[in-house]
Amino acid sequence: MNKADLTKLLQAVRSGTIDVKSALDRLKNLPFEDIAYAHIDHHRHLRHGMPEVIYCEGKTLEQIVGITKRMLKAGSDVLATRANETVYRAIKKADCRAVYHKASRAIVVKHKEEKLTQGIVLVLTAGTSDIPVAEEAAVTAEMLGSAVQTVYDVGVAGIHRVLSKRDLLDAARVIIVAAGMDGALPSVVGGLVDKPVIAVPTSVGYGAGFQGLAPLLTMLNSCAAGIAVMNIDNGFGAGVLAHRINLLGEK
Amino acid sequence: MNKADLTKLLQAVRSGTIDVKSALDRLKNLPFEDIAYAHIDHHRHLRHGMPEVIYCEGKTLEQIVGITKRMLKAGSDVLATRANETVYRAIKKADCRAVYHKASRAIVVKHKEEKLTQGIVLVLTAGTSDIPVAEEAAVTAEMLGSAVQTVYDVGVAGIHRVLSKRDLLDAARVIIVAAGMDGALPSVVGGLVDKPVIAVPTSVGYGAGFQGLAPLLTMLNSCAAGIAVMNIDNGFGAGVLAHRINLLGEK
Amino acid sequence: MNKADLTKLLQAVRSGTIDVKSALDRLKNLPFEDIAYAHIDHHRHLRHGMPEVIYCEGKTLEQIVGITKRMLKAGSDVLATRANETVYRAIKKADCRAVYHKASRAIVVKHKEEKLTQGIVLVLTAGTSDIPVAEEAAVTAEMLGSAVQTVYDVGVAGIHRVLSKRDLLDAARVIIVAAGMDGALPSVVGGLVDKPVIAVPTSVGYGAGFQGLAPLLTMLNSCAAGIAVMNIDNGFGAGVLAHRINLLGEK
Amino acid sequence: MNKADLTKLLQAVRSGTIDVKSALDRLKNLPFEDIAYAHIDHHRHLRHGMPEVIYCEGKTLEQIVGITKRMLKAGSDVLATRANETVYRAIKKADCRAVYHKASRAIVVKHKEEKLTQGIVLVLTAGTSDIPVAEEAAVTAEMLGSAVQTVYDVGVAGIHRVLSKRDLLDAARVIIVAAGMDGALPSVVGGLVDKPVIAVPTSVGYGAGFQGLAPLLTMLNSCAAGIAVMNIDNGFGAGVLAHRINLLGEK
Amino acid sequence: MNKADLTKLLQAVRSGTIDVKSALDRLKNLPFEDIAYAHIDHHRHLRHGMPEVIYCEGKTLEQIVGITKRMLKAGSDVLATRANETVYRAIKKADCRAVYHKASRAIVVKHKEEKLTQGIVLVLTAGTSDIPVAEEAAVTAEMLGSAVQTVYDVGVAGIHRVLSKRDLLDAARVIIVAAGMDGALPSVVGGLVDKPVIAVPTSVGYGAGFQGLAPLLTMLNSCAAGIAVMNIDNGFGAGVLAHRINLLGEK
Amino acid sequence: MNKADLTKLLQAVRSGTIDVKSALDRLKNLPFEDIAYAHIDHHRHLRHGMPEVIYCEGKTLEQIVGITKRMLKAGSDVLATRANETVYRAIKKADCRAVYHKASRAIVVKHKEEKLTQGIVLVLTAGTSDIPVAEEAAVTAEMLGSAVQTVYDVGVAGIHRVLSKRDLLDAARVIIVAAGMDGALPSVVGGLVDKPVIAVPTSVGYGAGFQGLAPLLTMLNSCAAGIAVMNIDNGFGAGVLAHRINLLGEK
Amino acid sequence: MNKADLTKLLQAVRSGTIDVKSALDRLKNLPFEDIAYAHIDHHRHLRHGMPEVIYCEGKTLEQIVGITKRMLKAGSDVLATRANETVYRAIKKADCRAVYHKASRAIVVKHKEEKLTQGIVLVLTAGTSDIPVAEEAAVTAEMLGSAVQTVYDVGVAGIHRVLSKRDLLDAARVIIVAAGMDGALPSVVGGLVDKPVIAVPTSVGYGAGFQGLAPLLTMLNSCAAGIAVMNIDNGFGAGVLAHRINLLGEK
Amino acid sequence: MNKADLTKLLQAVRSGTIDVKSALDRLKNLPFEDIAYAHIDHHRHLRHGMPEVIYCEGKTLEQIVGITKRMLKAGSDVLATRANETVYRAIKKADCRAVYHKASRAIVVKHKEEKLTQGIVLVLTAGTSDIPVAEEAAVTAEMLGSAVQTVYDVGVAGIHRVLSKRDLLDAARVIIVAAGMDGALPSVVGGLVDKPVIAVPTSVGYGAGFQGLAPLLTMLNSCAAGIAVMNIDNGFGAGVLAHRINLLGEK
Repeated sequence: MNKADLTKLLQAVRSGTIDVKSALDRLKNLPFEDIAYAHIDHHRHLRHGMPEVIYCEGKTLEQIVGITKRMLKAGSDVLATRANETVYRAIKKADCRAVYHKASRAIVVKHKEEKLTQGIVLVLTAGTSDIPVAEEAAVTAEMLGSAVQTVYDVGVAGIHRVLSKRDLLDAARVIIVAAGMDGALPSVVGGLVDKPVIAVPTSVGYGAGFQGLAPLLTMLNSCAAGIAVMNIDNGFGAGVLAHRINLLGEK
Repeated sequence: MNKADLTKLLQAVRSGTIDVKSALDRLKNLPFEDIAYAHIDHHRHLRHGMPEVIYCEGKTLEQIVGITKRMLKAGSDVLATRANETVYRAIKKADCRAVYHKASRAIVVKHKEEKLTQGIVLVLTAGTSDIPVAEEAAVTAEMLGSAVQTVYDVGVAGIHRVLSKRDLLDAARVIIVAAGMDGALPSVVGGLVDKPVIAVPTSVGYGAGFQGLAPLLTMLNSCAAGIAVMNIDNGFGAGVLAHRINLLGEK
Repeated sequence: MNKADLTKLLQAVRSGTIDVKSALDRLKNLPFEDIAYAHIDHHRHLRHGMPEVIYCEGKTLEQIVGITKRMLKAGSDVLATRANETVYRAIKKADCRAVYHKASRAIVVKHKEEKLTQGIVLVLTAGTSDIPVAEEAAVTAEMLGSAVQTVYDVGVAGIHRVLSKRDLLDAARVIIVAAGMDGALPSVVGGLVDKPVIAVPTSVGYGAGFQGLAPLLTMLNSCAAGIAVMNIDNGFGAGVLAHRINLLGEK
Repeated sequence: MNKADLTKLLQAVRSGTIDVKSALDRLKNLPFEDIAYAHIDHHRHLRHGMPEVIYCEGKTLEQIVGITKRMLKAGSDVLATRANETVYRAIKKADCRAVYHKASRAIVVKHKEEKLTQGIVLVLTAGTSDIPVAEEAAVTAEMLGSAVQTVYDVGVAGIHRVLSKRDLLDAARVIIVAAGMDGALPSVVGGLVDKPVIAVPTSVGYGAGFQGLAPLLTMLNSCAAGIAVMNIDNGFGAGVLAHRINLLGEK
Repeated sequence: MNKADLTKLLQAVRSGTIDVKSALDRLKNLPFEDIAYAHIDHHRHLRHGMPEVIYCEGKTLEQIVGITKRMLKAGSDVLATRANETVYRAIKKADCRAVYHKASRAIVVKHKEEKLTQGIVLVLTAGTSDIPVAEEAAVTAEMLGSAVQTVYDVGVAGIHRVLSKRDLLDAARVIIVAAGMDGALPSVVGGLVDKPVIAVPTSVGYGAGFQGLAPLLTMLNSCAAGIAVMNIDNGFGAGVLAHRINLLGEK
Repeated sequence: MNKADLTKLLQAVRSGTIDVKSALDRLKNLPFEDIAYAHIDHHRHLRHGMPEVIYCEGKTLEQIVGITKRMLKAGSDVLATRANETVYRAIKKADCRAVYHKASRAIVVKHKEEKLTQGIVLVLTAGTSDIPVAEEAAVTAEMLGSAVQTVYDVGVAGIHRVLSKRDLLDAARVIIVAAGMDGALPSVVGGLVDKPVIAVPTSVGYGAGFQGLAPLLTMLNSCAAGIAVMNIDNGFGAGVLAHRINLLGEK
Repeated sequence: MNKADLTKLLQAVRSGTIDVKSALDRLKNLPFEDIAYAHIDHHRHLRHGMPEVIYCEGKTLEQIVGITKRMLKAGSDVLATRANETVYRAIKKADCRAVYHKASRAIVVKHKEEKLTQGIVLVLTAGTSDIPVAEEAAVTAEMLGSAVQTVYDVGVAGIHRVLSKRDLLDAARVIIVAAGMDGALPSVVGGLVDKPVIAVPTSVGYGAGFQGLAPLLTMLNSCAAGIAVMNIDNGFGAGVLAHRINLLGEK
Repeated sequence: MNKADLTKLLQAVRSGTIDVKSALDRLKNLPFEDIAYAHIDHHRHLRHGMPEVIYCEGKTLEQIVGITKRMLKAGSDVLATRANETVYRAIKKADCRAVYHKASRAIVVKHKEEKLTQGIVLVLTAGTSDIPVAEEAAVTAEMLGSAVQTVYDVGVAGIHRVLSKRDLLDAARVIIVAAGMDGALPSVVGGLVDKPVIAVPTSVGYGAGFQGLAPLLTMLNSCAAGIAVMNIDNGFGAGVLAHRINLLGEK
């Protein structure tokens, strides 16, 4: 319920088209749907620029499919993250347009294909093992409408690899960098460009990597100014932020 | 052995009904039962307002069933938490009144149904994945005698959802809020009401959520004053505390 | 702005006493005061059962005095925590009714003395060094209207000390336990009573006490069910929660 | 040395205007200045969109002043962060245009005032004590050329305060939220808007706040998607990122 | 090679019974056996009062059996800890005297039964789930020659349980206390007795118990003076220390 | 009140020498003294083998002196730890027998000198900087009645130093080892002897020593079996434990 | 592309043999191969003294085999670490020269055997369970060309074991020490020799060993000066560093 | 006492030049000096390649001067680290050759100047604030006899700075890299060279830098193989290791 709706409601109250008690009810009857195990936020696109997204871990199959159906029925596109093949088959059954992105474990159901942005979201990884997180970012940004380009395995131990991608760095509007282990790549990239850089630590590594804590701290302490840091393995969040920033440069 | 018992014993000593050595033995013979692997605290209800509860993890099936039988025989109701289906089947065999609450993994055996409180314990969750912890709280409070109401998936990323529940917040006597990830919901709820709020961090999340450490710290540092914090995933403790507080308002 | 106010406003809109645009403004014009460095929440007492409290650390003297004056002018009582003598002198100058509680570093300014509750908030400490935290809890609860009783230095290394206070434990409606080092006292107290117990870890200790982390973890993992845990050294929060619980038993 | 420079150099080599050895030297002779204790990166503005910034902690007064002078001489504006009054007086002596922002401890020396952006960077804080960090962000963004607006002390314990700022949230192009203690404000703001949100945890709080770790984790685990997180107290980084994002929407 | 051996060797050198080079070799040829994957310390009993013990985790079955055989052949008794049934069957095959203690996962092979000490090692647990750790301590101490007595499930939430064991506490020469969760029992026991108390934190618990970190910190910070703390779940170490202390009081 | 006292009381009740209510009072009237800020445990020596000890940090000068006076009046010896010169002067004024041990910051007041044990407590340090902690252990053990010997700066980086002390290691009944940095000395000592070894980590070190956490973990994970570990810098606790163990071997 | 190549290219540009645009392309066309999921750094041997190594965890079988084939084709030897039997069989199929080192889980494919160094890399372990990490170090150093010698299970709890290896310690040029639990062995070894010592903490241990954190901290805080520390379980890195150091002493 | 000494001693025993008891004493009388608060290891140079070094923190002025005098008297050079001006003045008084290196807080007293190595130890820092740690490394390596070269402030946010030092990187025999904040520089350097790289994390940074923990983890997890990591701020250790490695390449 946005400002326009509120004005209209108040005018209806004034003109007597609607009585006070009903208005009161309407003011409480906000645009979400209560299905016992979830309050689906159908209003989120208006307010937040994107639909609710289904994070599958910790939810039962029934809950995931139930939420998916309600969202599709309400006209919303669906993005389900951290989904395994079983979840995919169940959603596919509910809507045959469902697409499974295996590397990123994401499921996308779109009502129609839209035109992508002019601006490019460039997604880099330091290593091959960081690809699943990078793909989650790429799938998310693309599902929201951004043009995405990916370059993988250009970590700092072979610094010439990323330096050779100067053209792509220059062409992009916003850059996502996924890295595990030492998490040093965003600092180097951040020092090379004048555009927003989003760093995603991954849980790739072992021992004192502490499941991604090491690259997370590296990125938070980056000596390159203004790096945006996401939670460990949070490719989804990076995709959302990149898309929002990317949109600002359109038209 | 409470104060009355002690007075009575001392009077019996005085009147010579009981000799000194026997009295000494009685003073040692406190009201618990030693079955080698457990000292069942039959006295706990008197002292503590509720029976001992069986936390199943780390106990063998034999131990769980053994303790259950002794408690039932001693007239106590039984609550077994963190129980799987195997445990349930074994207890069901021992007493057919056993009920299994699947979402919360709790087993309840009651000798008779009692009237619930007038006051309501309201249980909220931030997300769908927090439901198991919330259900453990709900089952516990209800088993102890409290009327319970639940509202799930009203986290702060869609703040209008919890704001729309104002009536329920106002109607409850005590509120439990279970939340993982950022654990921010208790701070918002705590700022909206003038009644006790109990916050339960859940292990829902990933990466820098550190299995519930993140929402635990959030709740301990809540800018809303006086939030009671429980251990991660400790729905049981929240249910106990809520019931105790709830009882204070009865009659 | 509560439900009654909203109903009244809508009726005024209906009757034409107020036009739509003005109503819209009123709906936005919520009861706080913006003084650049603070949004003083004058409405908090209505909604939250107590006035805003001034946490002094990190605020300049000017800010503290400025907020105090606005609150007093708006008719609110004032509680300022973590205040040093300099702050006290400045507030005293602004309002001579100001009282400084040295042990707890709290300042209280009350417009008039109110009658205290029948129910008693009992505040225990494990050691002498925990007294400042306990006093913060006591001052807070009393300032809000609760009758408070204190018993200090009854930690578990001399278990007979707390056992000898059985009468006080039985007489209280809610119990606050402040403890540093091993933080074991709340577990013992929690096992002795059937009423709400609030545990406050203190930063008393050294080495692997990690400035209060040790007793915090002890309390979160208490084997006595349903202990409410507060942040380290958060006597203030314990006082607020205790008072809210205490109020439920009045009348 | 950008692509154009490299092309020109190669053409000079081809035409014989420059010999191979000299070209080789030029390729090594990159645009920084070595003054023993620092390699000042005069090239940074071209490559990175902003000049090098002087982080004062851990540097001697001589070093700070030395770097400042070289930068000014090279035509660069200067931003020195975490500077105390002594540093300010020394820089003021070197260049009387120096301005000290006391709350944020930042020094700015600008060669000339430039026109600010149309787009607005909105800076919010949860509490009064978070203002120094917010001010560092504001000073930084403004020094780089962004129009900045600030709203302080609108934390979630009084949720109506931030809800009442809906107009400002809607009007801004990018939002910075600084919060200590529970760090919950960015999650609420992030759920209300469809634009980039930058969260800065502050070290405000005590006990289990662990000098800003608690709000840092809260923000990394935000249930609102796509929040950009900065290091604890890193207002500077937030200002840089906000400005870069803001620039994308200009023209 | 002890002092007596060294004296003898030097005298042999002097008397010419042994030449210098051979003596040199002997001085190097210390009493352990190198079997490629292990240097079995046959000398340990002399020096250390007990044979080497086989910690099974991280060792292959072949390695465990190989070491066992060498030790038995050298006349040493064998204690293998953290052993599963497969290991037991393999050792049983090598020596039919092998006994498997299931609760503690320990295997014992003794050449002959020896008389136990007069002094008693008393082993307590706070809960039923702590029994495996307590049993490891009990098996170890007994295998080394101590008389052992066990009392389980007497945690502080029912303080009367441990208080009722006063006689056993008084009768023991040294006391081991195993506790998980809040780890508070050793503090209470330590305050009741004037003899050495050994505290073993267990990994029993969940959430902020952090796999035994919580009770470990509790015990290190015990307000009862002089508690000896062991590693988490280290029943074996507790058994060794208890036996050594116990031996001091014999005769 | 021990068993004998209880028997006597019950007999008095039986014989009518004392009435029931008085007996009840006596049972509550346990042997400690309540002086508002402390419950002095005069009974502790009987129960615990040593008087209460005053840990000075976090206590006011008034509190320390007050407790000291009460203890001395009740005939108890006094040990005050972590005391500075100011505290010493105040106690000295109260009782001129007070002795200040500067290196360990401990104050001792004894009513009369007692004969020390035959058995020796040997106190080792790895480095010179560990001496204050070692001295606290030495002063404590000696004050309680143990003969103490000290050997300092024999850490493992010069392994021959500790190996050369073989005679002292053999002559002692119990050994305390204080070590900071890598904390490796107790493992070496523990492997050389067959007697109880008490390890005290010190906060000596820097960086990843984390104020004593590194040596604490080293000692808890010692590959020498049965090392007793104390809190960081807890020389006092080590002295108490050593004395208790030492006593077992007397006569 | 090294300095010689660059000079040659520039000369070709000068002489007109190559036009500017092609030279520009060549400067970008650096010596790695992009196969979508990896940028194989064929140049690494020249620059870095060794080929890229395949860390198998987090990579799919297809990716591992794909990278292996490209490397072999480019003439490089292959080392794949953390590889299971399935990976081995797949690589064996691709090249029958593949050798699987089971204990260390490493796969080596060499084009031809080379002569090993004169200098010896000595690899020690504290216990038997540390062997897999030590073997990874040994296999790596040997694959790169170093002569390697191993001595296992000589931890400090039996200090005479390592002291008896004095000859080997003296004969080696560089020493690797792998140790879990207390991680004390490198400190002792480091104090005995005047050559580089590389310490590798292993995840061997339990409880407060925290998966290798304890020995890692021990090694970082070693009282023996100049110990080189590697990540937990990083035998590979130790092998690389040892080989590089070893090479310096050749010829 | 090395092997030659031992052989000689045994021969003396054989020839009767020395009796058995005296020989026994000699074997115990190892080459250190016991001055109560320290066991000075005069033998260390022989065994360890360098004299003992005095770490000043936690030592009294008397102790530092005492140890210094004994070492000088025994003919050893002296290096005292973490020394303030007061310590310097006291040592200067004892020996006027003392030199104070202010940036690194190190004091050096040399008996005579020796020729430096041919091989160069190159010391890099990421920033200006890392210089004190780098200087400690440089002073240490030089004092031991290595030729040292320093290049400061070449961190990865301006990657061209370190790339431009290619000549120096190529010319050095071993490289030390000191870096705080993100600690990324060693990974880049490690990928550029084929020689040993020693990484020293510094405590430079704030917030989630956690006093050097962040760069420490970065370096331990470096994606460049074989980086040697030191404790936080341990420039001294880096200098020792670098010198030892450097020596291997001499002649």
